[in-house]
Amino acid sequence: MEQLECYDCGETYAFGDAARCRCGEPLWFETDTAGFDWPDASGTTGSGVSLGRDTLWRYESVLPAATPTGLAAAAGGTPLFRAPSIEPADGPRIHLKIEGVNPTGSFKDRGTAVGICRVDGPVGTVSHGNMALSVAAHAAAADREAIILVAEDTPDSRLAMIAQHDPHLFRVRGDYGRLYDDTLDGDLGVAFLNSDTPLRVAGQKTVAYEICEAFAPNAPDAIVLPVSSGGQASGVWKALRELNAAGLLSAMPRIYLAQAARCDPIAQAYRRGASRVESIEGEPTAAVSINNADPPSGNRALAAVAATDGGVVSVAEEAMLDETERLAADAGVSVEPSCAVATAAVRELAASGEFGSDDDVAVILTGSGYKYGGAAVDAASVREVDRADVPDAVRDAVP
Amino acid sequence: MEQLECYDCGETYAFGDAARCRCGEPLWFETDTAGFDWPDASGTTGSGVSLGRDTLWRYESVLPAATPTGLAAAAGGTPLFRAPSIEPADGPRIHLKIEGVNPTGSFKDRGTAVGICRVDGPVGTVSHGNMALSVAAHAAAADREAIILVAEDTPDSRLAMIAQHDPHLFRVRGDYGRLYDDTLDGDLGVAFLNSDTPLRVAGQKTVAYEICEAFAPNAPDAIVLPVSSGGQASGVWKALRELNAAGLLSAMPRIYLAQAARCDPIAQAYRRGASRVESIEGEPTAAVSINNADPPSGNRALAAVAATDGGVVSVAEEAMLDETERLAADAGVSVEPSCAVATAAVRELAASGEFGSDDDVAVILTGSGYKYGGAAVDAASVREVDRADVPDAVRDAVP
Repeated sequence: MEQLECYDCGETYAFGDAARCRCGEPLWFETDTAGFDWPDASGTTGSGVSLGRDTLWRYESVLPAATPTGLAAAAGGTPLFRAPSIEPADGPRIHLKIEGVNPTGSFKDRGTAVGICRVDGPVGTVSHGNMALSVAAHAAAADREAIILVAEDTPDSRLAMIAQHDPHLFRVRGDYGRLYDDTLDGDLGVAFLNSDTPLRVAGQKTVAYEICEAFAPNAPDAIVLPVSSGGQASGVWKALRELNAAGLLSAMPRIYLAQAARCDPIAQAYRRGASRVESIEGEPTAAVSINNADPPSGNRALAAVAATDGGVVSVAEEAMLDETERLAADAGVSVEPSCAVATAAVRELAASGEFGSDDDVAVILTGSGYKYGGAAVDAASVREVDRADVPDAVRDAVP
Repeated sequence: MEQLECYDCGETYAFGDAARCRCGEPLWFETDTAGFDWPDASGTTGSGVSLGRDTLWRYESVLPAATPTGLAAAAGGTPLFRAPSIEPADGPRIHLKIEGVNPTGSFKDRGTAVGICRVDGPVGTVSHGNMALSVAAHAAAADREAIILVAEDTPDSRLAMIAQHDPHLFRVRGDYGRLYDDTLDGDLGVAFLNSDTPLRVAGQKTVAYEICEAFAPNAPDAIVLPVSSGGQASGVWKALRELNAAGLLSAMPRIYLAQAARCDPIAQAYRRGASRVESIEGEPTAAVSINNADPPSGNRALAAVAATDGGVVSVAEEAMLDETERLAADAGVSVEPSCAVATAAVRELAASGEFGSDDDVAVILTGSGYKYGGAAVDAASVREVDRADVPDAVRDAVP
C-alpha cells in the first residue's frame, strides 16, 4: 500500500510525492482488497496489542500502517445500535454509530491513529476542534511533537482541552481556509494529517468497514453522515468500493451527506446536478465543526453520492438544533449540532419518501457533545430542594 | 439470578426485599458461574442487538438483565492498551482500561445499563456528576422518568450536561451523605441506581470480566482503581470471585484501591489493619468524584483487598494533580484527578517495590476528563501568529 491514486482521473503517485493530483483532485491510497474477507471470528487484533475490544486495527490488512502500542491502538470499534426512540413513524430503522465513543471523543481518532503510525517525526493539523484535539492527544501518546493550527476565533474552552496534551498550539490570524493547503506541501518537515489527506482517509474508512461488517452478510440500505471537507465521505466511499471489490456487499449502500443550510456548498452543487463544488460565502451556523465553505474533497464527496445513488441534504438551522435536543432527550446521545444534521437529514428523507420502513439506515454521529456542552444551564431545568422535602418533590415529579 | 446475598455474613434475600443486609452490610447478586466460559469467539452479543463491537452484554449469561435495544446496548467493551510512555523505570507493565470511552464518558454506564434493563418505571440516583449524567442519559433512551439528586455545590457546567437529557433534576440542600440511604428504601416508587446497589455492582463487575478475558488464559497480576463508595471495587472483587469459581483465572489478581489523601477513610482503615471503615472528616480535594468520607461499601472494599492480598494507597494532592497532567501529556489520555489517583498509586507501589518489572498491572481509568476540562486555558500555552508567519513559527517550534 505505497501507491496513491486519484479517484477521478486515475493518475497514481508514490506515497509522499504529491499532496494533490495534477488534475487538482485529492488522492487516496490504492488498496487491493481482492482477497480480503472479514477478520477471523476471534475478533482480536492480529498482534494482540489492543486487548479487550475490537478496534479499527481489526482491518489492519487493508490499512497503510501496523497495529501500534498505546493510545492509537484504542481507536475505532465504536458501538452501533438501533435507536427506535427517534425513528419517525413509517420511517426507516435508524442505527446510530456513536463515534463520540473514541478516545478523544470524535471520529477523527481513526485517521489520526492510522496517520501517526505511518509517518515519522512531528505531526500537525489545521482544525477548529475535534481534529486538533485528536492529533494533540495521539502525538502526546506517541512522543511526537505536534503543531496545531487553530482558527483565530476558536473558543478558549476548546484550546484548554487541546493544551493539556502539550502540543505547539497556534491561533492563526488571516485566511484560515488557505492555511489548509499551505501546510500540505511537506516543506515544513511536519506531516500534516489534515482532514482529506490520504492517511486520514485510510483511517476514516474503517467506520464503514465496521458498519458493513455489523450487517454482514447483508448490508445497510444507506449510510448517512455530516459532511465538511469531504474527507470522511471519501473514506466511507472508499470502504464501500473496497468491500464491493472483495465481494462482501450484498448490495451497495447509498451514501447520503448532510450539511447545515447556512453553509452547504456540496448540497448546492448536488441540487444543481453539478459534478464540481463551488466555494460559497456561508453564513455563521451552530454547526461549527462542519462550517466549510470551500471543501477540499467536495468533488469527491459529490462523486461518492453519485456513484452510490445517494443524495445531499441541507438542514435548516432550527431543525438541526431541534434534532440536537431530540438526540439527547430521546436517544440519550449528546452530540454537537454538527452531528445532529445527519439524523435530521434522515427525518427529511423519510418525510420525502426516500427512506421507507423497510430500510436500514446507519447514521454516523461524528462526535460527542459532552466536550462542548455544559457551559450554560437553563435555570428552569433545575429545582432546589431541602433534603427533608425530597420525598414530596419526587412524588410530585413522578406521581 | 433473583437472589441477593451478603458478602460478609452470607444471609440471602429475594431481589427487591432489602436494600442492605440485616447485619448492615451491602448486598449483591448471587451468581452461579460454575458452568461459565468465555463467550463464543465470534465476539458478538447473543441477540445481535448491539452491532459493531463487543460490549458488556457479551457476559449476558452472568448478568441479571437481558441485552437491550438502544443506548444501553452500547455500554462497556472499552479498550485496554499498554502505555509504555508512563511506565516507571523498572516498574510494571501498565495497561490502561479507559472507561471514559463509554457512551456518557464514564464507567457508570455499566451499572446504569444493567440496572435500567432490569427494573421498570422511574429510575433515579444520588450523584455529584458521572452517575447523574449516566442515569439521565440512559433514562432518556429508555423513555423513563429520571430523578437526579445532586449536591448543592454541583457546578452549573455539570448540571447543564445532565439537563440536556431532560431528567427531573434537583439540587439538594442539607445532609447529602444521608440522602444516599434515604433513597434506597423504595418507598418513593423510584428505583435508585446508587453506586453500590446490587444492580449497579452487577454491571460494574463487567469491567473486570473484560480485563481478565483480555489476559486469558493468563491473568493480570493486579488491578488498580480509584475507590469512592466501594461499589466499583465490589464489582471487581465479585468478578474475580466468579471467574475463579469458573476456573478461568490462572492466579487471583490482587486488588489495589487508590484514594486522595485528603479524603481517604478506606486507606486509613487499611493502614490500621481494621476490617471496618470509620467515617472521617475529609478535606476538600480536586478529586471531587471520589470525595466520599463515609463510603457505604467501604467494608466490602476492604474485604476485597484483604481477600486478594492487595492494598489501599493514599495519594497526595500534588502527586495526583501531577499524574493528571502526565496522563494527558505523555499517554494522550484526559482524565479527572479522581482517575489519576490510580496510576499515581501504581507509581508509588512500584517505588516501594510492591510492583516489579515482571508485573502486568491493569488500571481502571474511570472517566473522561474532557467532560470537565476546558474551562480555563493557560495563555502561555497558546501563541498567536499571522498566516504568513506560520512557516517560521513551525520551524521555530520543531527545528
